[in-house]
Parts: sequence; C-alpha cells; structure tokens
Amino acid sequence: MHEYDAQTAVTATGASTYAAELSDGWHVGGGINGGYLLAIIGRAISEHLPAKPHPLSVSAYYLSASVAGPAEVALDVRRDGGSMATVAADLRQGDATRITALATYGDLGRLGDDVRTTAEEPHLPPVEECVPSSMAPEEVRRVAPLMQRFDMRFHPDHVGWAVGEPGRTGVISAWFKLADGREPDPVSLLLAVDALPPVTFDLGMPGWAPTLELTAHVRAVPAPGWLKVRHATRNVAGGMFEEDCEVWDSAGRLVAQSRQLARQPR
Amino acid sequence: MHEYDAQTAVTATGASTYAAELSDGWHVGGGINGGYLLAIIGRAISEHLPAKPHPLSVSAYYLSASVAGPAEVALDVRRDGGSMATVAADLRQGDATRITALATYGDLGRLGDDVRTTAEEPHLPPVEECVPSSMAPEEVRRVAPLMQRFDMRFHPDHVGWAVGEPGRTGVISAWFKLADGREPDPVSLLLAVDALPPVTFDLGMPGWAPTLELTAHVRAVPAPGWLKVRHATRNVAGGMFEEDCEVWDSAGRLVAQSRQLARQPR
Repeated sequence: MHEYDAQTAVTATGASTYAAELSDGWHVGGGINGGYLLAIIGRAISEHLPAKPHPLSVSAYYLSASVAGPAEVALDVRRDGGSMATVAADLRQGDATRITALATYGDLGRLGDDVRTTAEEPHLPPVEECVPSSMAPEEVRRVAPLMQRFDMRFHPDHVGWAVGEPGRTGVISAWFKLADGREPDPVSLLLAVDALPPVTFDLGMPGWAPTLELTAHVRAVPAPGWLKVRHATRNVAGGMFEEDCEVWDSAGRLVAQSRQLARQPR
Repeated sequence: MHEYDAQTAVTATGASTYAAELSDGWHVGGGINGGYLLAIIGRAISEHLPAKPHPLSVSAYYLSASVAGPAEVALDVRRDGGSMATVAADLRQGDATRITALATYGDLGRLGDDVRTTAEEPHLPPVEECVPSSMAPEEVRRVAPLMQRFDMRFHPDHVGWAVGEPGRTGVISAWFKLADGREPDPVSLLLAVDALPPVTFDLGMPGWAPTLELTAHVRAVPAPGWLKVRHATRNVAGGMFEEDCEVWDSAGRLVAQSRQLARQPR
C-alpha cells in the first residue's frame, strides 16, 4: 500500500462518521497541510457515496489548526438525487472543529466527453531541467516535513525566492507527483491544489499563509503521470490574497481548478 | 426605501432564524436568481453578526430551484473569535432546502489598507457607448423580469449573442447598477457576481445555466457609482463550465472575485 493511501485512510465508526489518523509527516508551518486534510475529508465522502465517488466541487472553511493524531470526519448528506449528491462535512479533533466543508460529488466518468477548454496549458521546462524540491535546505525540510511527501520540480523562473531573489510575478508552477509513486485520482487532486508553497513566496513574502477558504473543482479523472500545478495571485490587498490553482494532467487536460482566500504571511 | 432593501429584507423569527419574502421580480429561467438569494442570505448573516457585518467569503451550493414567496434563513455560527466568524446558512422554503452555504464574515473597514493588485481593470467604453439591457426584446424581458432590477450597459463586443452573433471569446462585461439607484455595499456585491447573463451566451449556448456552486470573495467596501462586472470562462468540458467574475468599483478597486461551477445550457 502506498503511504498516501495508508495516511488518508478512513474507517467507518457510525452511520455517517469516519475515523482518521492525521500523520505528522504532513506538518508544515502552523499545522497540518490543508490539502492533506481535504483529501481525508474527500475520501470519507467518496466511501460514503460509492455510486458518486468523485468530488466535483469542494468548499472548505478552515476553523482551527489541526495537530497530528486522531480525527473524526462527520458527514451529513444534504441532497442525493439524480447524478449528484451534496454533503456537509466536518473534520474534528476532540471538541474542536478543524474544517467545515460543503461538497458536491458525482461520477466524472459519466459526464459528457466534450472539451472546449480555451485555457492554455502552463509551459514548464522538461522535468529534468526543473528544480527539485529535494534541493531545499535541511532547515526548510525540518520545519516542513510535508515536502518529503511530494516530488516537485519547480519552474526555474519560479524558485528565486529559495535564494532570496523572488520573481515578484505572483506565480509558482511545478511538476508534481506524490513521492511514494501513487498515481493521481480525483480525490488526490484536492491535495495537489494546496501542496506547493504559498504563491506569496514569489512576492517576497515568505512564511505561512493560513487559508480561510478553499474551493476546488475537479473537472476530469487525471491520467497517470506527472501533474502540472500552477499557482497565481492577482489581488494582494487588505492583508489577504487569493490564490488560484490549475492542475493539468499528463494528457494535457485541465483536471482541477481551485481558488483560496488566505491571509498574507505576517 | 429602495426596492433592493425592501425585497432583501429579513426579519428575525428566532435565535438564529430569519424570515424573508422572495419577490417574483427576481425570476429568471428556471427559478429565482441565485445572486438575489445570496444577498438575502448575506443580509441575514450581516444582521446576525453586527460587529462583523461584511462577507469576506461565501460559498453557496444550490440544491433546488426557489420560487417566489416566503422563505427562511437558518444560521449556525460555527466559529466566532478574533476578527472573523464562520457561519453555516440554509435558505429553505417549507421542507425544501434551496441553498446551503458557508460564509466567513468580518469588518472590511478594519483590514489593512495595502493594495498590491496586479489584476488589470477591465476596459469598458464609456457608459453611454455601451448597450443598455433595456434594449432587450420584449420576450426576453418577459421571461427574465430580473433584468428590470438592474441597469446594465454591455460592452458592445460582448452582446453579439443578443443578435445571433456570439463573440465566442467566453467573456461578457458590463457596467452595472441596481435599477432603483441603490448604491452598492459588500452584501449587494453577492448579487452583482451572479447578475449578468451566463457567460455561455457568448459561446453561442443560450439558455439557463444552473449553478452548482458559487464562491464569492468580497475584498473591499465598494465606492458609490457604477460597478464594472466581467464574467469569463476558460474550461467548458464534461457538460459543465466555470464562470469567473470580477467586480471593480468606480474608484478602480477590485472589490469582489467569484467563481461558480455551472451546468451548460441544454
């Protein structure tokens, strides 16, 4: 079993509750990575709705920072009819709700096969010409064990921040894989949209950028292989910024789009 | 009192429930306009949290089509601490939930005054050179009484669909005001992001495009006057499309960003 599958596993503990164990391998900055938590919630919903296994849209509101250890996912199916179901989900640890979310699930395999995407696939140099996350300094990898879960190869134009020369374009892009070799699926895309460093790094603002809200739309089942992930921000104001993310699969399909609202690093 | 204020009014009926009356003047296509419903929900939350009156982020999942008549907004404050509060909200009619939503509220006036927006304000010709929504044919105005609530002046390049010549760029932009002269505020921006015709009109796909999910971020208190509203889509696939919306105020500030996932018109 891949590490990803073991560490996002959920076990039914009641009619609509699931137990999970948050691994400290996904720690970063002030808590456990939000994308990892979203994948756990996403997996619980997927197991709860076997005929509608794929997230189409997930909106998560982050209420408090998670810690490694036991957690519970509590689900409430708000509508289930036709080809889609909408579910409310809470991720809790003890009395504290960490994330409250709404999600609409369906079966991506049963959607139409029309594709009229006008979005352009981000350009990335070949994988071997990009900058691997494994080159991060030892002290970075110590405070962000999360980085060891991924194989990320950054666009050379978007890693100036790592050497004190941020590009200041508000863009970070990279090739992305799970380090354990686990291929992407619709639920793991919820992780992929919140895995790269905050795009504010590229604006010369290092540090943790807590997410207030993140909505992801999963638009297709990803093909196996490397994903291209691109983060961009256009509106840094009032101490907050939006971070848009696109994920493209190895077949050149735009498989996920997300936007989050986050606080600027202090 | 302005029509907008009268028709979005809510009355407390319990510790966390509010009554509203959905006006049929906001009818369009298969139901009542989603932006109007969101403004009613937004107003209930605002009245419930007087110290945090402004939506920062609202995510709405549309479960069933609303009809004119009585409705109830039921709120559940999920977290209230520091400068923000997160609330779950349902809009119901009888036993049917129409919309379930999550929202984080705060006070936009207390955010920092830094603005580092790199987004470019959309270009629109002067108001008097744009195409007024009042020029819509009588039959359109009959099926969409909604249009009479707004004064919209469309970019001439983005109304080809009205004469059978859609621009096919996936963009619609317009000057926007409430027809009753009511100035914009943070809650009414929730209406502004879902007021224009679906961007699929510009792709030669007329017809109602039901929203599955819409998330709006309100980033600043809008200045009085005309708003610029721009809708764009980049990923029409699998029978669905995303619609991104930006709202700019008369002072040239990007005051709201939203994205919705909707079904293509049939």
